[in-house]
This record gives sequence, C-alpha cells and structure tokens, in this order.
Amino acid sequence: MNDTTDVAGHVRVNFDRQGLMAHLGAQLVHARDGVARIELGYGPQLSQQHGYFHAGATSAIADSAGGYAALSVFEPDASVLTVDFTMNLIAPARGERLEAVGTVVRAGRTLTVCRLEVTAVADGTRTVVAIGQQTVIRITARNGA
Amino acid sequence: MNDTTDVAGHVRVNFDRQGLMAHLGAQLVHARDGVARIELGYGPQLSQQHGYFHAGATSAIADSAGGYAALSVFEPDASVLTVDFTMNLIAPARGERLEAVGTVVRAGRTLTVCRLEVTAVADGTRTVVAIGQQTVIRITARNGA
Amino acid sequence: MNDTTDVAGHVRVNFDRQGLMAHLGAQLVHARDGVARIELGYGPQLSQQHGYFHAGATSAIADSAGGYAALSVFEPDASVLTVDFTMNLIAPARGERLEAVGTVVRAGRTLTVCRLEVTAVADGTRTVVAIGQQTVIRITARNGA
Amino acid sequence: MNDTTDVAGHVRVNFDRQGLMAHLGAQLVHARDGVARIELGYGPQLSQQHGYFHAGATSAIADSAGGYAALSVFEPDASVLTVDFTMNLIAPARGERLEAVGTVVRAGRTLTVCRLEVTAVADGTRTVVAIGQQTVIRITARNGA
Repeated sequence: MNDTTDVAGHVRVNFDRQGLMAHLGAQLVHARDGVARIELGYGPQLSQQHGYFHAGATSAIADSAGGYAALSVFEPDASVLTVDFTMNLIAPARGERLEAVGTVVRAGRTLTVCRLEVTAVADGTRTVVAIGQQTVIRITARNGA
Repeated sequence: MNDTTDVAGHVRVNFDRQGLMAHLGAQLVHARDGVARIELGYGPQLSQQHGYFHAGATSAIADSAGGYAALSVFEPDASVLTVDFTMNLIAPARGERLEAVGTVVRAGRTLTVCRLEVTAVADGTRTVVAIGQQTVIRITARNGA
Repeated sequence: MNDTTDVAGHVRVNFDRQGLMAHLGAQLVHARDGVARIELGYGPQLSQQHGYFHAGATSAIADSAGGYAALSVFEPDASVLTVDFTMNLIAPARGERLEAVGTVVRAGRTLTVCRLEVTAVADGTRTVVAIGQQTVIRITARNGA
Repeated sequence: MNDTTDVAGHVRVNFDRQGLMAHLGAQLVHARDGVARIELGYGPQLSQQHGYFHAGATSAIADSAGGYAALSVFEPDASVLTVDFTMNLIAPARGERLEAVGTVVRAGRTLTVCRLEVTAVADGTRTVVAIGQQTVIRITARNGA
C-alpha cells in the first residue's frame, strides 16, 4: 500500500488517471519537492525475450517518474508533457522490482529538466539498470505549447 | 491478423517471447531487411492523464521496432539488446492506432544504429508523433557485451 | 565563397556573430524554409587522436545547422537556443570536408525539433558519419524561456 | 598550469594528440579512476550569437571529458571512440571559464557509459550549464568495433 502522505494531492489525482501505469502495475510512492519515485513489481507480462523487464517498461516508469518530479514543483493546476528523453540501459533489468526515481535538475518557467535513474532489486541487492535525462514542458490553462 | 510472411521466422519467435508486447496488445507486422513495424491499437489501459497514448507506450513500441529491425539483419541465432535510445515526442499521440517503424541506419559487427518513428492514425489521418534514435548491441552465443 | 542568396539576411547576420563557427572555419551555405547546411573543411586543428574530425567539431556544426534550420522559419527578430540534442556517431569522420544538414521536423510556437545529419566527403565519396536529433526554443523580445 | 600528476601518462599522450582541444584552448586537468575534468577559458572565438560559450564548445569538452574518464580505467594500449551522447543545455554558458567533468557510471568490456556535467564559473559563482550522457566503445589492437 502506498503512503499517500508522500504524494501531493494533485499529483496523486494525475497519476491515477494514467491507464498505462495501472495496466503495468506501477505505483507512485513518492512525489514531492522535485523528486518522484515509482515502483514496479515483476511479472511475465512485463518481460522481454530473456524474461527480464522489457526496456519499454523500464523507460515508461522512468519517464513518468520525471514527469511527476516536475509536477511536484508546479502549481496545482498545471500539467506536464514530455518533450524528449534519453535512456541508457546499463545492466539487465532483472529482479523482483524496479524503482524509478526522477529528480528535477532545473525547473524553468516553460521547460524543466530531470535526471532519471532506475534500480532493480533482486533478493535485496540493488543494481542501477538505467539512467536517463528528460525535458518536460509545463502546460497551463493559458498555453498548450 | 498479422501477415507473418512479412516477418522472418526467428524474429517472430523472439517477438512472441516478449510478454510486454502481448500485454500492451502490440503486433509485429513487418520485420525484414532492416525495417520493422509494430502496431498498437488504442485502449484506456495505454493512456496518460489526458487520455492519449502514454509516452511510455509510444516509446516501448518504438524501442522494440528498432530492435526487430536490427534482428532482421542478424544471423538467426543472434539476439539484440538496447544500449540506449532517445525519443522526441513531437505531437500528442491520439488516435485509434500507433504505428512504430524502426529502420537500420548502420549495421555493425557489434553495434547497430536505428532511426525510430511513431505515427498516430486517427480517422485515417496520419501524424508523426515521435521520432527517435537508438543504439543496439548484437548478442551472440559467444559474447554477452 | 558562400552563395549568400541561399541564406536569409537575418540568418546570415546571426551566423556571422558566432565566434566559434569562424574559429572552426565553418561556413553556412544554405538556410531557408527549414533546412540549413554548414560545411567544414578539414584541418589538423579539428582532429581527435586518430587524425579524423573530432566528435566535438562534428557535433558543433550539426547543432548549429539545426539552429539555423529553425531560425530560417522564424520571424526575423526571433532568436533560437538549443534545449538539448543527441548525436550518434556512426562512422569515422574522415575526409577533406564535413557537411552538416539540419532539417525542421516540427516547428512549434515555443519548441522546434530538428533532425541532424553529418556527411563526410573524402575524394568525392560521401559517407554519413553522424545522425542527431535536437530540440530548440524560440526566443523573442518578450520571453527568455 | 596543469598538475600533470593528476593525469595518467597514456591519457595525457592521447589528449595532446587532439588538435581540436588545443585549438579551443581546452586543458585536461584531471583524468584518473573514471573521472576526468577539462577546463576551457572564455574567448570570443568560442562564442555563439549572444557572446556566451557556444553549445558546440560546451559539448566538445563534455564529450572529451567522458572519453578521458573512460580511457582512465582502460588498459594503457586501448583507445576509445564516442558511440553517442546527449546534452541538455540547462542554463546560458556565460563566465570566464567552463569546467566539464565526465564520470564513468558503468565500465564494460565493450561499452562504457558516462555522465557528463559542465559548470560555468563567473566571478567565482558556479552554475551547472549542461548535463549529458554518453556511450563510448573501447578500441583495442584486435578490434575496431
């Protein structure tokens, strides 16, 4: 069960609207002050051909973690869209769980840049399996980018 | 229904082992001579907060399309892993279907580089919604990178 | 000598203010309607350790080509800054000249996305040595991003 | 003056062969145990249109810093080539000096991944102006990638 006290209310509402995160089984466990963490337990429906987590699953939670890190520093009625992101998949993503952390590096009026990091947890051993960078844009009632 | 004559046999076997592609509902409809195409029909389980395709779904099929484009030019017993990829999400991914195409730009002994492009189809109108670049590594029985 | 008829006036003025392009010996030979081309003749002052063009030189002209491609579709008093770019260096950059082409893929009110491609010319043989993607932001008198 | 004791001998020899680094005025001040730092003093020959450091200069020293970080953990007779890199330019690069730091995140037999960070120093104030990620490949006498 998530500790929802670690997630600002408007961020939680936004996350709960993302069908893909529910479909993957991802949980937003932290999103505050420019840092967000999403966890994803393993299941065969998330696998690539060798049985590890698929890079698409790794990247989906990393991208979302960055977006929620950004959203956590925006005003409550703003939204966020990803402009672009890069992922370097540096180790096989095997284990019972992935943890994706997004961290705001630079928050601007229009653009915000995040670092992304995904760690696999296997029998208590933690391995960084992917690192990324991301640019997101703030969407307000008055623009649309 | 897929026209499996457009997909080399060893590529089809590999794709069918990817739990994530089945879970998302993605289909590999072409993979031959360095070009691969994956299609993904819309459903609310693929959405982001505005109801469009989630960037994670867009990126997952783009990454896989690049991998299968590479695999289609490798010898049948080789495998492929993504080293890194970049996605620029240039338009909202709305429509009844996404089509991701991966194209080999440079096939090397060790590394292969692909261009990625994702198009949304909405009521017959086609819009490029994402472009990407990807580096993959060939895995053979004798290495592991 | 450049054919300056291929470069809009305000784009030429901007290019001539870039000290780095002059220092490298780069020439803007085309910039119109969302496509720009920069050429760079070889000299040992542009080399990496094997004597080929340094990835930094390749990337510098690619980044600038994208920026001028974007500038060529903006109003004359706008400026442009690079938000981010990715380069895949797919072949050794050897030859007597590099040609970097930037092409606008999506021009937005705020953000513009370009594809980048650098070709080496060696004894008349042309080889694509790098491909890239780039996001730039339009700067006007009233904003600052 | 560089403290050459901070740079392994074979790394220094490699750097001194890079014509571009000398042409820009860049200095390798540290390269050991997977971390390398390159410094670049400002001059108008490094500028973009507003008089700040050109993104091409920022990226060139960042790319090289990553390459030397990797080289510092390789055997002395190995060499290194950049496979790809991404730069996010997060603030104007203004000041009297840039410092680019490359840090090895994952060193593999074939591929090595680095984080890149460039800081501008202006009147003693330090600002991170760019962050990056990079994949490089190790070249030995027996391969060529």
